[in-house]
Amino acid sequence: MGGNTFGQVFRVTTWGESHGPAVGAIIDGCPPRLSLSPEDLERELARRRPGQQSHATTRQEPDTVEIFSGVFGGFTTGAPISLVIYNRDARSRDYEELREVFRPGHGDFTYQAKYGIRDHRGGGRASARETAARVAAGAVAQKVLDAGGVKVVGYTVELGGVRVNRVEEGTIWDNPFACPDPEVAPAMAARVEEVQRAGDSLGGVVEIVARGCPAGLGEPVFDKLDAVLAGALMSVGAVKGVEIGAGFQAARMLGSQHNDPILPGGFASNHAGGILAGISNGADLVLRAAVKPIPSIAREQDTIDLRGQPRTLRVGGRHDVSAIPRIVPVLVAMVRLTLADFLLRQKAIA
Amino acid sequence: MGGNTFGQVFRVTTWGESHGPAVGAIIDGCPPRLSLSPEDLERELARRRPGQQSHATTRQEPDTVEIFSGVFGGFTTGAPISLVIYNRDARSRDYEELREVFRPGHGDFTYQAKYGIRDHRGGGRASARETAARVAAGAVAQKVLDAGGVKVVGYTVELGGVRVNRVEEGTIWDNPFACPDPEVAPAMAARVEEVQRAGDSLGGVVEIVARGCPAGLGEPVFDKLDAVLAGALMSVGAVKGVEIGAGFQAARMLGSQHNDPILPGGFASNHAGGILAGISNGADLVLRAAVKPIPSIAREQDTIDLRGQPRTLRVGGRHDVSAIPRIVPVLVAMVRLTLADFLLRQKAIA
Amino acid sequence: MGGNTFGQVFRVTTWGESHGPAVGAIIDGCPPRLSLSPEDLERELARRRPGQQSHATTRQEPDTVEIFSGVFGGFTTGAPISLVIYNRDARSRDYEELREVFRPGHGDFTYQAKYGIRDHRGGGRASARETAARVAAGAVAQKVLDAGGVKVVGYTVELGGVRVNRVEEGTIWDNPFACPDPEVAPAMAARVEEVQRAGDSLGGVVEIVARGCPAGLGEPVFDKLDAVLAGALMSVGAVKGVEIGAGFQAARMLGSQHNDPILPGGFASNHAGGILAGISNGADLVLRAAVKPIPSIAREQDTIDLRGQPRTLRVGGRHDVSAIPRIVPVLVAMVRLTLADFLLRQKAIA
Amino acid sequence: MGGNTFGQVFRVTTWGESHGPAVGAIIDGCPPRLSLSPEDLERELARRRPGQQSHATTRQEPDTVEIFSGVFGGFTTGAPISLVIYNRDARSRDYEELREVFRPGHGDFTYQAKYGIRDHRGGGRASARETAARVAAGAVAQKVLDAGGVKVVGYTVELGGVRVNRVEEGTIWDNPFACPDPEVAPAMAARVEEVQRAGDSLGGVVEIVARGCPAGLGEPVFDKLDAVLAGALMSVGAVKGVEIGAGFQAARMLGSQHNDPILPGGFASNHAGGILAGISNGADLVLRAAVKPIPSIAREQDTIDLRGQPRTLRVGGRHDVSAIPRIVPVLVAMVRLTLADFLLRQKAIA
Repeated sequence: MGGNTFGQVFRVTTWGESHGPAVGAIIDGCPPRLSLSPEDLERELARRRPGQQSHATTRQEPDTVEIFSGVFGGFTTGAPISLVIYNRDARSRDYEELREVFRPGHGDFTYQAKYGIRDHRGGGRASARETAARVAAGAVAQKVLDAGGVKVVGYTVELGGVRVNRVEEGTIWDNPFACPDPEVAPAMAARVEEVQRAGDSLGGVVEIVARGCPAGLGEPVFDKLDAVLAGALMSVGAVKGVEIGAGFQAARMLGSQHNDPILPGGFASNHAGGILAGISNGADLVLRAAVKPIPSIAREQDTIDLRGQPRTLRVGGRHDVSAIPRIVPVLVAMVRLTLADFLLRQKAIA
Repeated sequence: MGGNTFGQVFRVTTWGESHGPAVGAIIDGCPPRLSLSPEDLERELARRRPGQQSHATTRQEPDTVEIFSGVFGGFTTGAPISLVIYNRDARSRDYEELREVFRPGHGDFTYQAKYGIRDHRGGGRASARETAARVAAGAVAQKVLDAGGVKVVGYTVELGGVRVNRVEEGTIWDNPFACPDPEVAPAMAARVEEVQRAGDSLGGVVEIVARGCPAGLGEPVFDKLDAVLAGALMSVGAVKGVEIGAGFQAARMLGSQHNDPILPGGFASNHAGGILAGISNGADLVLRAAVKPIPSIAREQDTIDLRGQPRTLRVGGRHDVSAIPRIVPVLVAMVRLTLADFLLRQKAIA
Repeated sequence: MGGNTFGQVFRVTTWGESHGPAVGAIIDGCPPRLSLSPEDLERELARRRPGQQSHATTRQEPDTVEIFSGVFGGFTTGAPISLVIYNRDARSRDYEELREVFRPGHGDFTYQAKYGIRDHRGGGRASARETAARVAAGAVAQKVLDAGGVKVVGYTVELGGVRVNRVEEGTIWDNPFACPDPEVAPAMAARVEEVQRAGDSLGGVVEIVARGCPAGLGEPVFDKLDAVLAGALMSVGAVKGVEIGAGFQAARMLGSQHNDPILPGGFASNHAGGILAGISNGADLVLRAAVKPIPSIAREQDTIDLRGQPRTLRVGGRHDVSAIPRIVPVLVAMVRLTLADFLLRQKAIA
Repeated sequence: MGGNTFGQVFRVTTWGESHGPAVGAIIDGCPPRLSLSPEDLERELARRRPGQQSHATTRQEPDTVEIFSGVFGGFTTGAPISLVIYNRDARSRDYEELREVFRPGHGDFTYQAKYGIRDHRGGGRASARETAARVAAGAVAQKVLDAGGVKVVGYTVELGGVRVNRVEEGTIWDNPFACPDPEVAPAMAARVEEVQRAGDSLGGVVEIVARGCPAGLGEPVFDKLDAVLAGALMSVGAVKGVEIGAGFQAARMLGSQHNDPILPGGFASNHAGGILAGISNGADLVLRAAVKPIPSIAREQDTIDLRGQPRTLRVGGRHDVSAIPRIVPVLVAMVRLTLADFLLRQKAIA
C-alpha cells in the first residue's frame, strides 16, 4: 500500500524516479480561483538546483515545470493539478556499477528487501530528485497560504558543527549554505572545503519558521499540528531528528521556565514553538531538522552485493558534500504543504 | 475535519475526555483469529496508572477495559474492536476555576481558539487520560506484532538533566522512573524530590527500541517508517522532539562516521536507527522523544482569561511532577500501532 | 483492512454485533457548537424499532443512546462523539443451531470465507442491528444539515409488487409500511399478510428525497455526489439496486426527453435527480433503492454446513417479513451522512 | 477537498481535462514485479476510441500511453506509476460559444456553481475524455487480477429500448454496439440510425460480469463489495442506476425465490450476483448500469447563460449518439480497479 500522498484536503501525490523521464506531482483539493503559473513554481525550484553552490553537484537541471491540468486562464479550477518536471541530464551509465551492490547509508538495501526489485539508477525513487516535485507542490501550497498571510522561511543553523549566532533573514541566500549569520558563513565555507578535500561529507541543522499562522490549526489527537509537521519533515531523506520550539532542550527545563506566560497581547516567550496541545497558538511556528551527512562519499566503505557477498565500494559520480542547503527549500515546502492542508481542514469545520 | 484516527490498515480511532464517562478506542482492520482478552489490555494499562509512583498523581483509576465488539470466543473476528475504559474518579469540581482562565503550557487557549467551545474539566480531550485508549489499542497491536516476533521496549534515558549511562532492560520497572540504569535511579529520585518541593516540574528523554522488526517496512515517500514514527511519537502530549538512530548527533558526524557498513551478517553499526530511506533494514529501531516538563505547576504564572484580561494562576489539583514515566507505555503503544500497521501494509503488496 | 468508516470530513465509524453488549458509532469531524442530546438520536432510532409494526419482529429494544464523549453542556465540542446503544434483549440461544450451518441469502457463508471465524449469533456484524448506529449517527449529521436547511425524507414506493400512485409525505408514518399513498396502504397490508402466512418474505423499493440541498456538492470524478450516494445506499444490507432521478428509465429515454431544460428560475424538470456531472444542481435529490426480500424464511431451504455437507434449514426465531419499513430510516441516515460530509468538504475549498 | 482518488490499497488518482495537453493517472500501491508495458494499456484504450463506430464522434485520438515512472526493465517496482495520455486533436474553437452558456444535461451549470470558474472547452474535467485515464489504470489493475485468475467482461444488454435475448461473449466486438446477441445487433443499428437522423441521442443498459473472483472480498459495513462497485460504476458520467444480481427485480421476488440455495458444489442460482452481506461468495459478479442518453443533441433546447438570462442552444460539434459502447470499457475498468483493490485489501489481513 503506497505512501506517496500527503495531506487530507490539500492532497499531494508525487511520482517519479531520478533517472526516469520526469518527476511530478498531482495536487487534488486545491481551492479554485488562485492565480498559478509555471513561473511561480520554477522560482522555488531554482533554490534546490544543484550546481548553484561550489560544493554541490555539477549536474545541471533547468527544472522547468509543465502544468498539465487544473489551471485555466491562469487560475486554478478546482480540478487536480498535474505538475511535470522533466529529467534532462540523467546519466544512467554512472550508476551501472551499482546494479548489484548496496551503497551504505542509502536505500539500496531496503528497497531491494521491500520490493524485491530496484531501479538502481541514481537511487530511483529514493533519490533527492524526487523532492523537486515536493518543492513545486509546496509553491502551490504557498498560494493558499498567501491568502491567509502565512510566510515560511528556512535557513541553516548548524553545518558540520559550525553554528550560527544570530539570524538575519535577508542574508540567507547571500552565501552557498543558506546561512543567516554573515559572520559565520566563512567558517562554514572553510569546514565544507576541508571535508570535501577529504572525500567525506557532513550534516547540519536547518530551522524553519512560519509566520502569520492563525491560532487554531491542527487536529488532535493524532493529527496534531506538531505531529504532522514532524512526520512531514522526517519524510525528507537525510532528516534524522525533528524538534519544535525548545525541542530537546525542553527536556532539561523546569515547568516554570518552559511554560510561556500568556499576556493580553500574546505569549511572553515561545518555548512551545507556536503549538500547544497540537494546535497553533498564533505565535511563530519554529521547527528544526537534523540533517545527516550525505552517504555518497569518495572513501572506501564495506558493503555487500545482491548475493550477500562482501564488497568494498567507493561512490563516484557527482555528489554534494551536504544535503544542506538544497534540503532547505524542501523542508520549507513540507511546512507549506502541511499548513495549507490544515488551513483548509479548519475551514471545513469552522 | 477530525484527526482522531491513526493508521491505514490497522486503524485506531480514539475518543473520550478526561472527565466524561469513559475513554475508548475503535480498532478497524485488525486481522481475525488473534486471541484477545481484557486482561491483555489491562496489563499494559497498569503501567500508565497514576498513583503507582511517589511523585505521580494520587488519582486512582482501576482502568479495567471492556471489549464491546470484534471479539468472539476469545478471538478477534475481523470486525471492529470497540474498547471502553470508564473514568471512575473524576472530580470535576477541582477544575471549576479553570472554566474561564487559560493554563499556560496547556491546550486551554488553543482549544478555545480552534473550536470556540471547550470542555475545561481536566483538559478534556487534551488530557493525558486520552492516552489510556492508545495504550489499550497498542496492546492489541502487539498481538499482531507477536505473530511477527517484534518486541517494543521503552525507558527513560534522561530525567531532569540526569542521564543514564547504560541500559539494563530488566531493571526498568524496578524504580519509579522507568530508569534502566540502577546506579543512576537514585540521582533521578533526588532530582524529582527537589523539584517537587519547589512546586515545579521537569522533563526528560525517553528511548524506544523495537527488536525483531523485519526489513522492508515503511512506505516511501511520505509514509516512510521514520516519518510515521516521528509523527506518532510527536502526537503524544508533552513530546517536543523526536530523533531516530544518531538523531541530532548525526548533524555533527561525517559521512564516513555515520554510514553503517553492511556486512554479510548485518549492519556493523546502527547510526541509522534501523531505517534507511524510510524503510526498516532489519536492525533494531531506535527512537528518542524529548518530553517537556508538565505545565501544571504550583507556582504562580501569568495568563489571561476568556475575555483576554490578565490573570495570575497557581494550578492546584493532583498533578505529576513529570510526564515520565507514565508517558513511556504511551510511546511504546504508538510504536506498536505504527509497526502493526506497516506489517499489514507490507502484506498487502508482498 | 477494515471498511467500517464512512465519510471524509464528517467521518463515522460504526462497531458492534447483534448479540454483543452494544452497537455504536464514533463521529470524528463533527463541527463544534451544535446542540446535541440523546433525545435527538432516540427520536430517529424509534423509527427503526422492531415490534412497531404488525409484521415486524417482536424483539423489543428500547434503544436509548448514551453519548460518551464530544458533547459538553449540550453542545458538540469538535472532539469525537462516541455513541453507544446497548443491546438489551438478545437471545443468543435462538441461534445455537446456526453455529455450523450457513443460512441461504445471509452473510454466514461469506463471513466464514473471509475471516475464517464467525460470530454466528444473529448475524453478528452482518445483522440489521448494526444499522442502529448508522441511524444515530445520521441524526447527528442532520444537525449539520439543519444549519444548511437540508431535509431528507424516505418512503416506500413499492412493496411486494404493490406500487404507490402518489406521495403524500404527511401520511408516511400513518401505516406500518412507510407508504405515502393512503389509498394503496391497504393493498400493501393484504400482500404482507398473504406472504407472512406462507412463511415467506418480500421486498420493495424505497425512495429518498433530499430538499434544500445547495448546488455545488459532490467531488468529481470518483467522489461524485451520485457515486457516493449510490455506495452509501448499497452499503445497507438487502439493497440490490440504486437509481437516481429517472434511473433505469433514463436508459429508455431520448436525449431530448431526458435533458432537464434550464430556466432562469431553475430546472424545468428533474430527470437528473438533482445531480449533474456528479455535483448537486440545487433541485431535489431523488434516489431509489431496491430492497430484496428478507432471507430468513420459515420455509425449508437447501444449504451446507461448515464441513461442506448438504443440510436443509428452516429459519426460526423472530423475523420481519420485509426489511421495509425498518430500512427506511437507515437509508435516510445514509443520505444524511453523505450530504453532511459533502457540505463540509465544500466548505473546505469554497 | 478533491475526489479524484479511487481505492484504498491500489490507489488511482486521475487528472486532466478534455482540452488540456493530456489526461493521466497515478497508481500508488501497485504490487512490484508485475510485467507492464504501454502496449498493455493501449490495447484497452483502443476500445474506447471514438471514430471506431459509425455513430461515434469522428475525433481521432491515437491514445498512446507514456509510462513516466514506476516501471523499470518492463516490471513494476512498487513506486507510483505515472501514466500520461496526450490529447492530440482537441479543437477548442468548437467550444467557444459555450463559454457563457450552460448546456442542459451537462456539468456546465454545476461546475460553475461549485468552483466559481470553469474550463468550458469540451466539458473540461467533466468530459468523457477523463475516462481514458481510468481505462489505462484499469489495465494495470487487470495485471493484479491476472495473478488471481479474475476476468472482467462487459457488454450492452439494452440500447434505445432494444434488448438482447442472449449473451454470446465471443460476438461482443463484432458489432459497433458491444452487443452480445448477433440476432439483435441489426435492430440496435436501426434504432441508432433513426435517432441519429432525428438529431437526438439514446441510452441503454450495460452488464458487467467478473469471473474467477474468490470468495471473501469486500469490507463490511461501508466498504462492502457491492457498495464500492455501485459507487465505482455510478462515478462514470451518464450512469444513473446500478444493480447487482437480480437488482431491482429482487424487489418483486419472494424470499423463497430470491435466496440462492447453497449446494456442496456451489450456489444453485445467482440472484445475489455473487455478493452476500457485502462479501463475494465465489460465484460470478453480475452488475448492470443504466446509461442515460448523451445530453449533447442537435435539437434546440432551453437554457440560461452565466448571467442567468434565458437562451436557446443547439449543440454542434462532434458527438456520439450514445455513450454506449464507449462506456463499456470504462465500466469494465472501474470493476477491475475495485476488485484489484479488494484483492490487496484482503491480503493485508488474511
